[in-house]
Amino acid sequence: MSENVSQTAEINPDDTMKILVASDIHLGYNEKDPIRGNDSFIAFEEVLQHAQENEVDAILLGGDLFHVANPSTNTLDKCFRLLKTYVLGDSPIRLEFLSDQNDNFIDSLNRKVNYEDPDMNIAIPVFSIHGNHDDTGGAGRISSMQLLSTNGYVNYFGKWTDLNKIEIRPILLRKGETKLALYGLNYMNDARLCRLLDDAKLYMEKPDEPGFFNIMVLHQNRAERGPKNYLPESSLPQFLDLIIWGHEHDCRIEPEENATKKFYVSQPGSTVATSLSEGESIQKCCGLLSIHKGLFRMDPIPLKSVRPFVFESIDLATVQEELALDEGNVQQKVENFATERIEAMIERAKAKLTGYPKQPKLPLIRLRLLLTEVEQQFNAIRFGFRYHGRVANPHDMVVFKKKPKIKVKDELGNALDVAALQAAYRNQREQRVQRAEEIVDRYFREADEAKQLEILNPRSMTELCRMMVDYQDDDAADKIIKFYEDQAQTFLCSQDSTTEESICEALAEFHASNPDMHDKVTSMLDARTNVPDSADPLKRFRDLDDDDASAAGGGAVDTAVTAAASKPARGRGSRGGRGSRGGRGASAARGKAQTSISTIFSQQSANNSSIASVASRTSSRKTATQKARQMDFDSDDE
Amino acid sequence: MSENVSQTAEINPDDTMKILVASDIHLGYNEKDPIRGNDSFIAFEEVLQHAQENEVDAILLGGDLFHVANPSTNTLDKCFRLLKTYVLGDSPIRLEFLSDQNDNFIDSLNRKVNYEDPDMNIAIPVFSIHGNHDDTGGAGRISSMQLLSTNGYVNYFGKWTDLNKIEIRPILLRKGETKLALYGLNYMNDARLCRLLDDAKLYMEKPDEPGFFNIMVLHQNRAERGPKNYLPESSLPQFLDLIIWGHEHDCRIEPEENATKKFYVSQPGSTVATSLSEGESIQKCCGLLSIHKGLFRMDPIPLKSVRPFVFESIDLATVQEELALDEGNVQQKVENFATERIEAMIERAKAKLTGYPKQPKLPLIRLRLLLTEVEQQFNAIRFGFRYHGRVANPHDMVVFKKKPKIKVKDELGNALDVAALQAAYRNQREQRVQRAEEIVDRYFREADEAKQLEILNPRSMTELCRMMVDYQDDDAADKIIKFYEDQAQTFLCSQDSTTEESICEALAEFHASNPDMHDKVTSMLDARTNVPDSADPLKRFRDLDDDDASAAGGGAVDTAVTAAASKPARGRGSRGGRGSRGGRGASAARGKAQTSISTIFSQQSANNSSIASVASRTSSRKTATQKARQMDFDSDDE
Repeated sequence: MSENVSQTAEINPDDTMKILVASDIHLGYNEKDPIRGNDSFIAFEEVLQHAQENEVDAILLGGDLFHVANPSTNTLDKCFRLLKTYVLGDSPIRLEFLSDQNDNFIDSLNRKVNYEDPDMNIAIPVFSIHGNHDDTGGAGRISSMQLLSTNGYVNYFGKWTDLNKIEIRPILLRKGETKLALYGLNYMNDARLCRLLDDAKLYMEKPDEPGFFNIMVLHQNRAERGPKNYLPESSLPQFLDLIIWGHEHDCRIEPEENATKKFYVSQPGSTVATSLSEGESIQKCCGLLSIHKGLFRMDPIPLKSVRPFVFESIDLATVQEELALDEGNVQQKVENFATERIEAMIERAKAKLTGYPKQPKLPLIRLRLLLTEVEQQFNAIRFGFRYHGRVANPHDMVVFKKKPKIKVKDELGNALDVAALQAAYRNQREQRVQRAEEIVDRYFREADEAKQLEILNPRSMTELCRMMVDYQDDDAADKIIKFYEDQAQTFLCSQDSTTEESICEALAEFHASNPDMHDKVTSMLDARTNVPDSADPLKRFRDLDDDDASAAGGGAVDTAVTAAASKPARGRGSRGGRGSRGGRGASAARGKAQTSISTIFSQQSANNSSIASVASRTSSRKTATQKARQMDFDSDDE
Repeated sequence: MSENVSQTAEINPDDTMKILVASDIHLGYNEKDPIRGNDSFIAFEEVLQHAQENEVDAILLGGDLFHVANPSTNTLDKCFRLLKTYVLGDSPIRLEFLSDQNDNFIDSLNRKVNYEDPDMNIAIPVFSIHGNHDDTGGAGRISSMQLLSTNGYVNYFGKWTDLNKIEIRPILLRKGETKLALYGLNYMNDARLCRLLDDAKLYMEKPDEPGFFNIMVLHQNRAERGPKNYLPESSLPQFLDLIIWGHEHDCRIEPEENATKKFYVSQPGSTVATSLSEGESIQKCCGLLSIHKGLFRMDPIPLKSVRPFVFESIDLATVQEELALDEGNVQQKVENFATERIEAMIERAKAKLTGYPKQPKLPLIRLRLLLTEVEQQFNAIRFGFRYHGRVANPHDMVVFKKKPKIKVKDELGNALDVAALQAAYRNQREQRVQRAEEIVDRYFREADEAKQLEILNPRSMTELCRMMVDYQDDDAADKIIKFYEDQAQTFLCSQDSTTEESICEALAEFHASNPDMHDKVTSMLDARTNVPDSADPLKRFRDLDDDDASAAGGGAVDTAVTAAASKPARGRGSRGGRGSRGGRGASAARGKAQTSISTIFSQQSANNSSIASVASRTSSRKTATQKARQMDFDSDDE
């Protein structure tokens, strides 16, 4: 698998695009941990080294390059250092850019692909979307990925600005006779994306000329996590050739064919374990993607810099007799058993040492014990103390799960009552609730009247909690609270008779008068920045600057939307490009601009159709050739 | 004053360095305020525009470019956009770099001045120190200024790493026949700096050859704020020609001569008002510094982009009779009076509109009323509501101060007792306590035994509070708490007889056993990173990476220091430069490395002497020529 495509006789390297693919690098994960704090950066450096050694034409990232919405100066500095070291330099760029850069990179400072910036010397162009972890957040809604775009290290693409309709125009690249159409979709709430797909509101524009290899990069749930809580593969259009699927952390980078749609899906997985689950203990990889005209191959590159991680889950029921867990000091017996297992796991971890100089050597160890009785549980924290200096995570090496005993019949064979079964189920469910927002959610569902919130909707409170815990996005909290504050003030002002004394009384009606408040919050948090004025380096922030608009005050969200929708796009008309896009700056905002969007789409219908129609137009070509694609290519050097 | 030096016959522009000087730009100040959030960026853009229009050779900043230790993605993106737009480009660089770049920029990625980076195209080199607001913080102790250095926008200098001895080597630049020695000192706690000066532990290396114009940039308290709480001008060495004094926000950019030391001090002031005090309402400026051999002039450039700000302080005692404040509805009378004043102030603010397109137009208004009776105070917040849309800060437009009435004699002429006077004074003092850390400090000083902290020293708690409030540096809080946690654990482990039950009892001895705990915390927070390995882009973080060192655990600070001091500097010997610096990587850390530092200094004593001796060696030259310097130069175009 490591042999180079270019070595085979039939395939001219000048016609072969080589792309280093990686995803979910989570820079800054656990950065304050004195042992593990550097792991994410070491792995990213290895990825960049593989790109350099393989002399790739580009790097393609699948989102979550950063672990939190507002990375620390420490994380940013390390990231900038790595990118500046590996991505800048003198190598010639062999990719010809065919599509409209001004359109592909509309939010960037220069509106150009980075290697055409005359003030910077790019050796390897990086293309990336953002994930849920590096989604826009905070004041100004700037994704950390935006910083890399502004600095010229990364070509950040796949942005959407309209929550009701998404139109994806590909980046078109050529190297010799190979042509690539690269579609990106930045992370979006799965449920919202499913609704857009159901309503055929996701548009993918196909290139005018034929012969493009079509890649889509996205960052969504792939595993089914409840209905509408993941993106079904089959909802993607058939004309695609390869999907690079970010977000899922287990490495399934070897392309898997979708049986119905006949495209391939490659899921790179993460480069650092952000949880100690079984999926994260699989060998981590990046991949070398080679594309030659309509053929492709993906060579997985196992990462040698990853901290060894051994995971084991043991059901104590299976060793119940062997360990004689029915008698004596059960806790001590289980602890002795765990000691044995962990010693064996530490031994196995040694086999994962690669000799890569920067590989961190202390292993991650996770032993999950499924208990049959609560008496089997020992003090895992104290247990861990013994492993300081031998294991990277001594404090959470052992976790216990209590196996619920739900019996439909009791010992005598009598059926148990349903209420008892439900109680057992609830008990089981509660054990699973470990996420902060679930606890908050349950609290308000179960709390009595007196404990309910007066202003905030409990669902908004739950969302606030999730944003803070998952993405450390404190600004989201500020925004939510500010939103309710404004709404409550507006509400109070609308109640003529309210006096200072009767505020509490008046507020009692607040919830009832605003049943869809939480939906408004969701929309506010999802809302994207407007397409900015082009000539001004502070352009994304035009609205902030506009004293008179802001000074009107009250209902912050509503005014912002109206202002954005009614403000004409500045300086766009003069920038050339396709004629019908003059009004697009304004239409990127929600609401009032619906009409103009429809107009644009009808004007562009020759190129631009909904997924459903795209799929039907291309399906004949696809079924005939798709299956052969990967195999042909592979056979060259097997 | 605006005529260009180069127009005069005697002065050749090829021998004249032009430097744009600014300070305390506080990017991101109040960034969430929908009205004022963009002010700091607009002012910075104007500074950069002046640099571009005046075709300066460099920009020199005096610290506090950022307002907080961990700027948001919004702030960083705007800052990067501005720097990339104005600082990159094709203009030729006319400054020749004479000193050892590897030494001047030892912490930077390339260890080079940015305009010699082959991968970037610099048009205007920026040189900057950091201030207290953009001091190092958080995991890895990375100053936000470091990010600008890594990205190549700014030449970040003036770092010190050793808390016990500071040695400043200048950046040496030449343009034609003008030679500049640029000394920088990043912000340091004033008291610590005063101690270093008292102990003659601040060394400034003079260039080997004569004829340099000597500038020092620093960021300290200049105004006397208690003994040891500011840097006395007179403690700086006489050989300096000009001090650029950052940190103080009132603009005193016109150079002021120090009567004893005969050097000049120019205090640019801030470019944005971060408090509504009188000093911030003075016209804000940056300056165009021209240096021709031994001559210089500073042309203030009034900033046109600054939001109008009118400040007024009125003692109601002076209008007591006019307003008849002894009778009737006093509150209403004062409110009416305030309305009049504020209308007049809004009128005066209009005169501050400059016509600069991006200047924010809503004015900042601050009316401070000194009350004689508490009854004169009205509801300033409700009062402010009327000014929404007319004023940028309606909610804090009016503030009240209660003038304390301390009478030494009562109405009958009898002397009052001392206790009553003291009470009055305390009352007055308490009114002044508005800072969070002072409240914390007072709480613990006044709290009884039961309310005292068990582990943390109250002074550390106060410091923690200050770091969080002033610089939003949450990581400092984490660090302090972690430090005490480690110390307490170490203490407990040293108490042989401690059981789980007796922990509380044992901890009662913790404070007494560690009287100097807070000093250790201060040292920990002040400690700087070690001089890093050069070839590795992740180099600043070598220690984090070192599993085995970290895994030893316990007493985090002590082990870190020892490790740094005993670890040999890597890869330094082979990099050329002055012979005696081989061991310096290690000696930059505190403690055990003292001997090697002394050795270095004795070897370099020809160049390098303490301030006292430098001053005496140069004083003869200085007294003869200094006074004439600025005047000669100015007279050319007056």
